[in-house]
Amino acid sequence: MPVNLKIASPKIRHAIDTLDGSLIRKVAESNIGRDDVIALWFGEPNEATPDFIKQAAVAALDDDHVFYAQNRGIPPLREALSDYVTKLHGRPLGIDRITVTASGMNAIMLVSEVLIDNGDNMVVVGPVWPNCRQTVQVMGGEARQIALRPDENGRWQLDMDALFDACDERTRAVFVNSPGNPTGWMMSAAEQRALLDECKRRGIYVIADEVYIRLAYDFPKAPSFLDFAAPDDPLIVINSFSKSWSMTGWRLGWLTHPPELGDVFSILNEFNIASPTTFVQHAGVVAVREGDEFIAEMVEGYRRNRDLVFQRLAAMPKVSLSRPEAAFYAFFAVDGMTDSLEYAKQLIAETGVGLAPGRAFGEAGEGWLRLCFASEPALLSQALDRLEPALS
Amino acid sequence: MPVNLKIASPKIRHAIDTLDGSLIRKVAESNIGRDDVIALWFGEPNEATPDFIKQAAVAALDDDHVFYAQNRGIPPLREALSDYVTKLHGRPLGIDRITVTASGMNAIMLVSEVLIDNGDNMVVVGPVWPNCRQTVQVMGGEARQIALRPDENGRWQLDMDALFDACDERTRAVFVNSPGNPTGWMMSAAEQRALLDECKRRGIYVIADEVYIRLAYDFPKAPSFLDFAAPDDPLIVINSFSKSWSMTGWRLGWLTHPPELGDVFSILNEFNIASPTTFVQHAGVVAVREGDEFIAEMVEGYRRNRDLVFQRLAAMPKVSLSRPEAAFYAFFAVDGMTDSLEYAKQLIAETGVGLAPGRAFGEAGEGWLRLCFASEPALLSQALDRLEPALS
Repeated sequence: MPVNLKIASPKIRHAIDTLDGSLIRKVAESNIGRDDVIALWFGEPNEATPDFIKQAAVAALDDDHVFYAQNRGIPPLREALSDYVTKLHGRPLGIDRITVTASGMNAIMLVSEVLIDNGDNMVVVGPVWPNCRQTVQVMGGEARQIALRPDENGRWQLDMDALFDACDERTRAVFVNSPGNPTGWMMSAAEQRALLDECKRRGIYVIADEVYIRLAYDFPKAPSFLDFAAPDDPLIVINSFSKSWSMTGWRLGWLTHPPELGDVFSILNEFNIASPTTFVQHAGVVAVREGDEFIAEMVEGYRRNRDLVFQRLAAMPKVSLSRPEAAFYAFFAVDGMTDSLEYAKQLIAETGVGLAPGRAFGEAGEGWLRLCFASEPALLSQALDRLEPALS
Repeated sequence: MPVNLKIASPKIRHAIDTLDGSLIRKVAESNIGRDDVIALWFGEPNEATPDFIKQAAVAALDDDHVFYAQNRGIPPLREALSDYVTKLHGRPLGIDRITVTASGMNAIMLVSEVLIDNGDNMVVVGPVWPNCRQTVQVMGGEARQIALRPDENGRWQLDMDALFDACDERTRAVFVNSPGNPTGWMMSAAEQRALLDECKRRGIYVIADEVYIRLAYDFPKAPSFLDFAAPDDPLIVINSFSKSWSMTGWRLGWLTHPPELGDVFSILNEFNIASPTTFVQHAGVVAVREGDEFIAEMVEGYRRNRDLVFQRLAAMPKVSLSRPEAAFYAFFAVDGMTDSLEYAKQLIAETGVGLAPGRAFGEAGEGWLRLCFASEPALLSQALDRLEPALS
């Protein structure tokens, strides 16, 4: 038999080869570390993790919490999170519904692994932080974006009919991020009830990314599906330590899910990462148990930033925006801007201010820019001074 | 139009619903923390991470390395790893070939995401730590195990013909773990060359899990594909901080890959976890740059343990095993044992010694047990005393 000597070049999956990287990273990466650039492009607090949490990590290292941990997370952290969400939502949410994950991002990936077979789809309410969409693509599925639209007052509105029109028999989940990044949109409790009811009827999961739940400026917290859902409802809620406790680089998050999914997420943690860093989990216990004062002060600061940024941007002739109700972004339209990626790059070159291009959050974000105001007021003022000529 | 009021129950993917959890965990979980059990079931050093690495983590926390990091890992760590592998393999391995991951486990998951489409397969040389197989299943593929067989001297042998007979047009990769867990098998340099050559010819990736490379008892290190492969060869090598630097709970690993895969792994890190914990990466720099003395002492200790455990087990009438050449496991057959899972559970009940059942490593492991000797000599002696009556 003749030997085939042709050298084949191994290919990677088409779904991976065509995966879009982050457009925010595209703007930022070549400019990271430049002293002359005020970087407001990432969704990241500029304040470091508070000392009491760092000290808890050091104590955990001293105590040699450096070995493998349980796949679903160390029991003290699952207990602390159970207590935390029980208090936050005013109703019992047991440890059987909590799985610790290595970040909110990782939690989203696990959800796509659980739900998305080749050819399935997820309907995603946008403009939204894009990473959910790509996890669906990694699993061979399709992410369908339904766009929020600003009403005559500039407030973002969800068209529930359009959302359900986008669902078909291969729809496995609807993904909503409320409070929303980049829009600051808050879904109302009534909308949440209507969405979950219809999803239950259709046999579709609701995936609620609630990482900004504590960052609401006119309420103690944003409305949550966990305020009313039954334990067995088809609901998976994603949360993270990154925003509420300024722990972006720590990679810690959690899922609240129906009890019957506990074993599944445990097994998937095993095959994705085994479990989040053990001593980071111990620091997470302290963050959750002792962090309320820190969060209250942080939100107060963000509220002042929100007011500052909103007032200044709203006064710029080319800018349209509504007052952000939650999260820490000003998401604004710029008259005449048609290519937000190029515009954002040009803004860096001309003004030294780094913003995220709206298109990074889906087609519906084209024409918009996102400014993260989780920063120093003086730095924000300086950035706005620099932006003013370009946006007037 | 009549409304369909039937409540559908949302299903999770079949591939996930049928995912086997770890059989080691099945033996261990209900016995974790029992003071009367000598736990030798996990593949984990019993010694905590050395102080100089823990201190590096504390210093990184003090320096506020608590923010998001680059998707492929912080540059100082990629540089340190590039220097480390360049020295280890005696040939230049540039930073363009290094991507940091959140553990070796996570690296394996990323590889399956890159290569395995629905219906593809990966050929896995076993008995082997099973988690690679399940990552293939998560991606909708099939893992095909080819069994190493002990020769007349009890040394594990790979049948390369059988391996390639198992490959077909949907085979995307061959996975080899050498030094092997649980067998301690070391693939020879000649076998590695032959495997890579044939895989190149067929357009198949070689995935080499080399996390035990430093734990070889009769050589300075085990043979590695990186000792000879060209940069663009279809080769992805997985490594981890867990074993070489006693950092299991830290969740840090890395990939060495063709330069052209750098962007792909960068993007996949973004959508899986963004990047490993930032201050853990800074501690990783110190581990890699200053860890050689620690590794040398650790390997010396494991060698003594290896000799102790091998001599004692080999003298027990029911036991057959070969002397482990690498890694930190004694993998031994027990006369008359047909169900290793039940046997391992019974051993815990009767002797208070926790071992891993061979079946956890694939069908070819049935009839065998694994004992992890990365432990205290006194504890190992005690465990062997307890096992002796049962195995004689």
